[in-house]
Amino acid sequence: MILLRDHIGDVLRDARGRQGRTLREVSTAARISLGYLSEVERGVKEPSSELLTAICGALDAPLSTVLRDVSDRIAFAEGLRVPDVVPPELLAGLFHEVTPVG
Amino acid sequence: MILLRDHIGDVLRDARGRQGRTLREVSTAARISLGYLSEVERGVKEPSSELLTAICGALDAPLSTVLRDVSDRIAFAEGLRVPDVVPPELLAGLFHEVTPVG
Repeated sequence: MILLRDHIGDVLRDARGRQGRTLREVSTAARISLGYLSEVERGVKEPSSELLTAICGALDAPLSTVLRDVSDRIAFAEGLRVPDVVPPELLAGLFHEVTPVG
Repeated sequence: MILLRDHIGDVLRDARGRQGRTLREVSTAARISLGYLSEVERGVKEPSSELLTAICGALDAPLSTVLRDVSDRIAFAEGLRVPDVVPPELLAGLFHEVTPVG
């Protein structure tokens, strides 16, 4: 089963990793316990909306951006096409052109 | 404060409304109580990831699509530009062309 908290955790951990920050730094900035942040990142704990907003604030990442990333990852997990890719019609046209003639 | 559960509730209620379905129909399909679904839709209750997936399933709406809609709404609430709009450079160009000369 695809679970929102798993993907939120992945996105938050990746964002923190890209910033080279520790669990301690981000949890302090978000005013939450280190253990709680760690559990959220591992998808163990369901973050409340308030604490999710606090964590996003600590990461200086808009909640909308985090959720868009989450949505893209879940779309991939669902086997759906991630939006904003080349439309199939156009892709078909490209392949047609590339196919050797004769 | 922008809260995820408020926007999730709005998106779920809108999806149900577009389908012309009642709280009873969707809650039965999702195997949750009518009261719980109502609270989730009103942003009163934080839906667990499992129940959010169940509600999306009952609405036949992929979780990724629901979250993308949520992300767009939150971006609007954050005062951010919703992604996929015309880039400012291009818009500036358009306005330049439209501006009367002399």
